[in-house]
Amino acid sequence: MNQPIGVFDSGVGGLTVAREIIRQLPGESLVYFGDTARVPYGSKSKKTVCKYSRQIVNFLMTRNVKAVVIACNTASALAVEEIRDMVDVPVVDVVEPGARMAAASTKNKSIGILGTESTIKSGIYEQYLHRLDSGITVVSKACPLFVPLVEEGLLEDRVTEDIVARYLHEMKEYEIDALVLGCTHYPLLRGVIGREMGESVKLVNPAYETAKSLKELLREEELLASPEAPVTYEYYVSDGVERFISFADAVLPCHVDKTTVVDIEAY
Amino acid sequence: MNQPIGVFDSGVGGLTVAREIIRQLPGESLVYFGDTARVPYGSKSKKTVCKYSRQIVNFLMTRNVKAVVIACNTASALAVEEIRDMVDVPVVDVVEPGARMAAASTKNKSIGILGTESTIKSGIYEQYLHRLDSGITVVSKACPLFVPLVEEGLLEDRVTEDIVARYLHEMKEYEIDALVLGCTHYPLLRGVIGREMGESVKLVNPAYETAKSLKELLREEELLASPEAPVTYEYYVSDGVERFISFADAVLPCHVDKTTVVDIEAY
Repeated sequence: MNQPIGVFDSGVGGLTVAREIIRQLPGESLVYFGDTARVPYGSKSKKTVCKYSRQIVNFLMTRNVKAVVIACNTASALAVEEIRDMVDVPVVDVVEPGARMAAASTKNKSIGILGTESTIKSGIYEQYLHRLDSGITVVSKACPLFVPLVEEGLLEDRVTEDIVARYLHEMKEYEIDALVLGCTHYPLLRGVIGREMGESVKLVNPAYETAKSLKELLREEELLASPEAPVTYEYYVSDGVERFISFADAVLPCHVDKTTVVDIEAY
Repeated sequence: MNQPIGVFDSGVGGLTVAREIIRQLPGESLVYFGDTARVPYGSKSKKTVCKYSRQIVNFLMTRNVKAVVIACNTASALAVEEIRDMVDVPVVDVVEPGARMAAASTKNKSIGILGTESTIKSGIYEQYLHRLDSGITVVSKACPLFVPLVEEGLLEDRVTEDIVARYLHEMKEYEIDALVLGCTHYPLLRGVIGREMGESVKLVNPAYETAKSLKELLREEELLASPEAPVTYEYYVSDGVERFISFADAVLPCHVDKTTVVDIEAY
């Protein structure tokens, strides 16, 4: 099946997931959509995030995608069921693979979850984890300042260290040994988070696990592209092409030469 | 004219402008719209901010408003002309009154402007100030972390002090004696900003100046409500009523008992 894979996010963060897919599935074509006109999703309601996600999936289906990857943790947390109901193609979210990896990693049966306000409020990670093992203790914390700090480029900075220490303070009282970086921007803070938590805590990056799940799924469903098929990457945003391209060039292994603006409210 | 005044913002911040209007014009009714589903505007393009502003003004006109107040600095900076072109009622923005006050306050002829990325990029404050006095030096700085810090409640905090010091570092090298707090959230940081800049620098809050301009305008155009007219306040948002109400109750002198969600994309 040489059709592309559709990947979407509330903005640029999902490019870290796209990067993992490109690494693990170099023969696959991608269509990426970033909802830069309505970013962020992390403080918005389920109703609104579902509506935005539906519009994006409607758009992706017009690009004839063979699978949909929800690269945004908040959209995964709030809208995955709605999206599965609306399309016939396989849908992969970032939460379930991240939760599975965390459950496989913990020995203490104590797992930490960092995410946006809406992701944490949804309780979705707890649900997945308790379905896997009801004996797991889950400690979760919303970290609303992480995305702005990353976008301001303060990846290694005393202010970031200070904020990380405050958000993780409670987390450290429980003896967690796996910590899910449950928002696409958070892996960019893994240096500071890792130092704060210490080496005994495994940091789980859902982007990596999601690409792995996608690969298995495409193989099982016999949806992998044929080896001779041309590989193409298409990028779409709802606002601000220049800002998107500069972020994309920093994250992706290949230069993005064209990004198209889509009037997403029309879908 | 007993019709209400329409006030809009990208989210909750414009309530600080609504508060000033309520204080200075206690006999006037208001219709407030906060675009909480698409907040923030400060990092988005002119095209997108204009589109969102047009949709909101279309909605406000259905509420039969006699004037429109653009309580958002970014929407004022990017969309005021478009809005003036589309409606027959008077339109008041927050930038022009703020610029006028700053120009009236400075003795050194050196003014600082703090705002969102899009407001600062627009150069709108410079334009207004240079129209008033081409000899004024304008030093402007985008402060993308201020809104998230305010929304996280870190109004008086060492992290906020650290970030304020960095953003204002350059500003202090010029001998500015008036500083415009050019985003509705920034006056909430006036304590920290004031200490950093020292007492010789006047902090200009455009919300206060905007309400004053509006009052003068309504008087001139004979649009003031008659003294016996009932005063009503209506609140509309595009997402997240609870979050809005809790912010509104912290800011406004009267309790907000009802807020209605509007599908703003349909306007």
